[in-house]
Amino acid sequence: MLQLDGLIAMAIQEDIGHGDVTSLAVVDTNLHADASVIAKEPLVLSGCVPFNRVFALLDPGVRVHCTFEDGAAVEKDDRFIELSGRARSLLAGERTALNLLQRLCGVATLTRRMVDAVAGTKCRLLDTRKTTPLWRALEKEAVRHGGGSNHRFGLSDGILIKDNHLAAAGSVADAVRRARTHAPHGLKVEVEVDNLDQFDEALRAGADIILLDNFGLDRIRQAVSKADGRCLLEVSGGVTLENVRSIAETGVDFVSSGALTHSARAMDISMEFRPR
Amino acid sequence: MLQLDGLIAMAIQEDIGHGDVTSLAVVDTNLHADASVIAKEPLVLSGCVPFNRVFALLDPGVRVHCTFEDGAAVEKDDRFIELSGRARSLLAGERTALNLLQRLCGVATLTRRMVDAVAGTKCRLLDTRKTTPLWRALEKEAVRHGGGSNHRFGLSDGILIKDNHLAAAGSVADAVRRARTHAPHGLKVEVEVDNLDQFDEALRAGADIILLDNFGLDRIRQAVSKADGRCLLEVSGGVTLENVRSIAETGVDFVSSGALTHSARAMDISMEFRPR
Amino acid sequence: MLQLDGLIAMAIQEDIGHGDVTSLAVVDTNLHADASVIAKEPLVLSGCVPFNRVFALLDPGVRVHCTFEDGAAVEKDDRFIELSGRARSLLAGERTALNLLQRLCGVATLTRRMVDAVAGTKCRLLDTRKTTPLWRALEKEAVRHGGGSNHRFGLSDGILIKDNHLAAAGSVADAVRRARTHAPHGLKVEVEVDNLDQFDEALRAGADIILLDNFGLDRIRQAVSKADGRCLLEVSGGVTLENVRSIAETGVDFVSSGALTHSARAMDISMEFRPR
Amino acid sequence: MLQLDGLIAMAIQEDIGHGDVTSLAVVDTNLHADASVIAKEPLVLSGCVPFNRVFALLDPGVRVHCTFEDGAAVEKDDRFIELSGRARSLLAGERTALNLLQRLCGVATLTRRMVDAVAGTKCRLLDTRKTTPLWRALEKEAVRHGGGSNHRFGLSDGILIKDNHLAAAGSVADAVRRARTHAPHGLKVEVEVDNLDQFDEALRAGADIILLDNFGLDRIRQAVSKADGRCLLEVSGGVTLENVRSIAETGVDFVSSGALTHSARAMDISMEFRPR
Amino acid sequence: MLQLDGLIAMAIQEDIGHGDVTSLAVVDTNLHADASVIAKEPLVLSGCVPFNRVFALLDPGVRVHCTFEDGAAVEKDDRFIELSGRARSLLAGERTALNLLQRLCGVATLTRRMVDAVAGTKCRLLDTRKTTPLWRALEKEAVRHGGGSNHRFGLSDGILIKDNHLAAAGSVADAVRRARTHAPHGLKVEVEVDNLDQFDEALRAGADIILLDNFGLDRIRQAVSKADGRCLLEVSGGVTLENVRSIAETGVDFVSSGALTHSARAMDISMEFRPR
Amino acid sequence: MLQLDGLIAMAIQEDIGHGDVTSLAVVDTNLHADASVIAKEPLVLSGCVPFNRVFALLDPGVRVHCTFEDGAAVEKDDRFIELSGRARSLLAGERTALNLLQRLCGVATLTRRMVDAVAGTKCRLLDTRKTTPLWRALEKEAVRHGGGSNHRFGLSDGILIKDNHLAAAGSVADAVRRARTHAPHGLKVEVEVDNLDQFDEALRAGADIILLDNFGLDRIRQAVSKADGRCLLEVSGGVTLENVRSIAETGVDFVSSGALTHSARAMDISMEFRPR
Repeated sequence: MLQLDGLIAMAIQEDIGHGDVTSLAVVDTNLHADASVIAKEPLVLSGCVPFNRVFALLDPGVRVHCTFEDGAAVEKDDRFIELSGRARSLLAGERTALNLLQRLCGVATLTRRMVDAVAGTKCRLLDTRKTTPLWRALEKEAVRHGGGSNHRFGLSDGILIKDNHLAAAGSVADAVRRARTHAPHGLKVEVEVDNLDQFDEALRAGADIILLDNFGLDRIRQAVSKADGRCLLEVSGGVTLENVRSIAETGVDFVSSGALTHSARAMDISMEFRPR
Repeated sequence: MLQLDGLIAMAIQEDIGHGDVTSLAVVDTNLHADASVIAKEPLVLSGCVPFNRVFALLDPGVRVHCTFEDGAAVEKDDRFIELSGRARSLLAGERTALNLLQRLCGVATLTRRMVDAVAGTKCRLLDTRKTTPLWRALEKEAVRHGGGSNHRFGLSDGILIKDNHLAAAGSVADAVRRARTHAPHGLKVEVEVDNLDQFDEALRAGADIILLDNFGLDRIRQAVSKADGRCLLEVSGGVTLENVRSIAETGVDFVSSGALTHSARAMDISMEFRPR
Repeated sequence: MLQLDGLIAMAIQEDIGHGDVTSLAVVDTNLHADASVIAKEPLVLSGCVPFNRVFALLDPGVRVHCTFEDGAAVEKDDRFIELSGRARSLLAGERTALNLLQRLCGVATLTRRMVDAVAGTKCRLLDTRKTTPLWRALEKEAVRHGGGSNHRFGLSDGILIKDNHLAAAGSVADAVRRARTHAPHGLKVEVEVDNLDQFDEALRAGADIILLDNFGLDRIRQAVSKADGRCLLEVSGGVTLENVRSIAETGVDFVSSGALTHSARAMDISMEFRPR
Repeated sequence: MLQLDGLIAMAIQEDIGHGDVTSLAVVDTNLHADASVIAKEPLVLSGCVPFNRVFALLDPGVRVHCTFEDGAAVEKDDRFIELSGRARSLLAGERTALNLLQRLCGVATLTRRMVDAVAGTKCRLLDTRKTTPLWRALEKEAVRHGGGSNHRFGLSDGILIKDNHLAAAGSVADAVRRARTHAPHGLKVEVEVDNLDQFDEALRAGADIILLDNFGLDRIRQAVSKADGRCLLEVSGGVTLENVRSIAETGVDFVSSGALTHSARAMDISMEFRPR
Repeated sequence: MLQLDGLIAMAIQEDIGHGDVTSLAVVDTNLHADASVIAKEPLVLSGCVPFNRVFALLDPGVRVHCTFEDGAAVEKDDRFIELSGRARSLLAGERTALNLLQRLCGVATLTRRMVDAVAGTKCRLLDTRKTTPLWRALEKEAVRHGGGSNHRFGLSDGILIKDNHLAAAGSVADAVRRARTHAPHGLKVEVEVDNLDQFDEALRAGADIILLDNFGLDRIRQAVSKADGRCLLEVSGGVTLENVRSIAETGVDFVSSGALTHSARAMDISMEFRPR
Repeated sequence: MLQLDGLIAMAIQEDIGHGDVTSLAVVDTNLHADASVIAKEPLVLSGCVPFNRVFALLDPGVRVHCTFEDGAAVEKDDRFIELSGRARSLLAGERTALNLLQRLCGVATLTRRMVDAVAGTKCRLLDTRKTTPLWRALEKEAVRHGGGSNHRFGLSDGILIKDNHLAAAGSVADAVRRARTHAPHGLKVEVEVDNLDQFDEALRAGADIILLDNFGLDRIRQAVSKADGRCLLEVSGGVTLENVRSIAETGVDFVSSGALTHSARAMDISMEFRPR
């Protein structure tokens, strides 16, 4: 909360600048109002906490009540948040609060569609580090609200040896060995491989998790068969709503998708205002 | 630059946490490398400055050279940024730098397509305040790189009387009069209207700019005809690549679109790494 | 409030350093007291909010009650703020709170005298950007409490083409044209001119506001006559209590004065302390 | 420097907001210029360092050269700082840099006049804590540039028992005794007294420094005679350019004046701009 | 409190990172618990305020009650702080709160042993600037909780001329004279001397306090005898629990010890947890 | 580096306050000096980077050269860092730089002694989260300089189920199962156990690492035998220089010790100063 509040205070400041000149001129200082947040299309809810903090930081006198919980499916025209307070405060926080909410609902909604597509398989849907800078914690939470799981948060809480590391380390075997020896012993070692030769090498080297990058379905199935439960398998690259179920049905443990966070479109949400 | 650097330092910190455990274990501390940033699809470039600042803040020893300028059209497979420096630094900054770049190129590219669609008309394409919190300055610059123009930056540098303000102020005429009297005299008064009655009232009240929200083409043409050059006209709501030219050809001065910033998808860009 | 609190916390820290060694040694930790803030000369009040925030941030247990409102005329010997709380907290915040209050009352009081001098004319009194760094928002509010109006807040919310810009742009006409084309369309274009030739050029170029810098009364009258309502007129330079009414009576719209903020002297205000 | 840079970066931000819309529109991005800072009236210089830091933080490519040193007497029309660099950078920093410089020169100039008035006596002129919040370090340095000396910086580096502390502690003797016992042993104990009875009590209690507040010349002379060198004596209250020499000639060690910092008017200084 | 809260928020962040992955997975979000802080060895208590602030900042719903006061002697197995609140919050703050508490109790406990060793003499035990960076205020408070007194807080609130200053200034006499003339007049002048010749020179120069560094008992006694009450005397260097009383009995005013803060070991303290 | 610099800037500020009054008075502004950092006892070096950053942030003109590398064994009287620059800068940074260095060398030196004690076994020495708040990254680096390895950095990059979590979760088996299901899949699951029953349960539940807390040598041997390589074993509690080798020889993988960081005493290091 401490960090989130710092970011939100900066975001409010970004929008308000030295003051809301329209409201100061046009809206009476003592006018109070009620407002409702309305879904203009079906969506999966995420962002109640940051929405709330925008108003809490701006004016502790504003009351915000979420009538649905994060993760809930909200229908078109549902009013899912109710607010009341000074009209100037509601207007000052509206855009910043909605900008966060629309984006986070976008991530949760896209995630939910992908998760639904793999329902019934053991495969879990993962996000990546391809998130909006400074809002990763919220976006990864939105992925969870959508039913997905989180890959590592950043560079310090997971080992993932990628193509650029392999170029630097020389070979898959060397890279895995170095990670085993020098990286924190509480972290599993994951290696990204581009082809079956690298896959075999990673398996022999004892990688805990192998990430199959841009493998076709056939090669994924070969990898599942070779691994035979000795390591966890993750698939990434070119994952779409159309092909995600076929991938999941190969028996891999995880599918990861950067699009969940980097290309989710904002949900259409508006705020309706009723002066008292 | 001062503010941008502050944000970027926080973004680097968000990704790196207490350290890049993979590189520390797998990549030699003294290994140097070259790297190229490659477009995997055609795009309009935006984000050279923040890309550069990521590495400048992380390790002043990394050299970054943009071979195209912001605003340039980059073809698929073009290498448009070249880097060299310590391998660990390149790997540590890669994700944060690309996350910013991919998003900003996305905004510039979408903007360029819309701008091209209205080419030859006098109509200018505007952004909105529906930007990613904390990155508004960069996203509005990306709109300019794409050929668009910026609407007000935030609540303090432009007067825009919207539906919620009208609800509070009582009438269009009252709201415009109050803005004239109380708001900073150097700012023009813009009013958003939902129908032609409101439009007439705004025109009579002497609004400098009138924003036609969700007007069909017919009604837009009526408004243009009534205004007859006495005020500037802006159109918003439901603007798409398909209909933007028809709107522009009605003779309005501006079309604004929130989608430019809130729903542009990230461009596909990768970084290729060559150890020395 | 978020930004103000940050500045005030830093100001408190500046004065208190690692602790108030006198009070810690001399005043019992549990001693409570009442205190009154007293005007030692007549003044226009401004600064109740920052005065209050000093104590709110220092010790939420201190109660502060302003018995007059910002903008009120306070007589000599009036007690206009009453406080109560821990004696150590009152003593620790006293100087920072008074330093802010004395300065802001100074600005409001000087402004009121100038505003009274132009009473009955249509001319409005404006401040400038010649404010105390970091306290601009409070000083501009003090100007409003004194009855004045605010010029632009800073470089981003108003276009003002000054002599140094003209030197760079080449001519008044070119400068105005460039501002029309490239600056945000919601901002009016203001140009500062030094003589009537420049004035004519600015008028022809269609400037929205023309600032007559260091014009004598005769030339101001000529400008008013030439403008004939086609643009707003502002006068600056050498404005004093003695000549401001004559300037206002020429029919200009605005007179601006840097002295309101950069050279107002601090009002004589003291805090009287009554241990319980 | 670390703290100063932080404050100056915030002050720049306060003025520039999201960008200098006038210069961005009117001044070519590649235009370079020279500029001179000119005294429009005689003054004592203070503020070269913060003036310099404004431009160093804004654009390291701007070169600033002070042709006089802080503390120097500058004549009317002297050009005492020369700058060169990108025109946009010079224009963006101009106001913030001048706002600081004009105020600090004001403090140094007023101080110099007071110091000159007591020349030849052993009496030193002191400032107080009545400074502009957040700029105390610079204002106290300006006092030194003017030839004055500094009283304590804040509440933690000097013991000064004032009327409000005496009200809390009960008696002068008790207050001095408590300060001796509980306050840091490296700090001298100073007591402010309102009358000769309190003075006698403070002298008996062994105060290191006694501050005579609002004493007339006769009573000051009595105090000097009674003290007979056993403690240092300081005078405050109603000190003016007219009476400061008479006070100094009584033989007191220090005269302190809040007006040096809280009511110095800004010096008239301008920046002249020459595009290359 | 303002500064302390800032530091503690950063310390919490240091430990929690992007979240407590163990508690999030293993502990129900709604589980509440009570907890007790228990001394595993006898100690002098210090740190109740920072312990409390950790939880106040992390989760205002956690209640913390200290059953002993700072400065109290706590026995082995005493439960001296009781907490209740959400289990996840208690677990998230536990380590940061204990890390601060264990260290501060260590300082207070070591100080108390040294203070007890000089009981009955007039000699006061002082700390130094050899504190943990960023936690000086808390550690100096812990010294007071242990019964010691504080030397200057930092470089700005006390004059202490050390060997390196003497090397720069040339002679003891010159250094003292320069300090008298140029340093703030409210601060006493202290000089550190290495031998009796320097001591004599410092005494003649009128130092207010002389610090005898690494003097043996004989030479300390000679210095006490020579000083004869004309200045305060402090001893430092090689002070231990074994020799501190002998030093105190020579009649010096102060003994100072860096070990109080730089080498106190952490006290053994644990937190016991009882889910409701 | 970005975060470290922020902390060090605050630490410098903590010590310097509003200025080094002694050096400003006693040391000429233009005096330059050389200085050497000298070990007064044998030590393992750690802290060259932060030592360097103190002076880099304070005065970029100071040159600092470490003649040994972090991790090196330094003998008594070795001069291991050489500095040169303005005398005032050297004196202003001395204490903060040494406070960090003395502590970090203390941690590295104590770690080295423990590491040497287990030389030749496969057992690795680990630190804990019992570090000085805000300086964890440096202290964990000092452990590595001493030859130890790091346990998890904080709560977000490692799963460690401790007694308080077990109390909340109900049973070892439940806790491990929940961690497997809900915690990030890239992290191994570690469980702390107090007795062999818990140990058996943890082994059956498939814990990746089991931490034997306060087990005697016999029980440790039983655990090693039961585990038979199926999981990693760590020992903590009551580890001393005397018993660490016996523990290591049982065949456990790790021994962890909080004392490495919470109770290492500061090394005796001084800075010798030579004015030019």
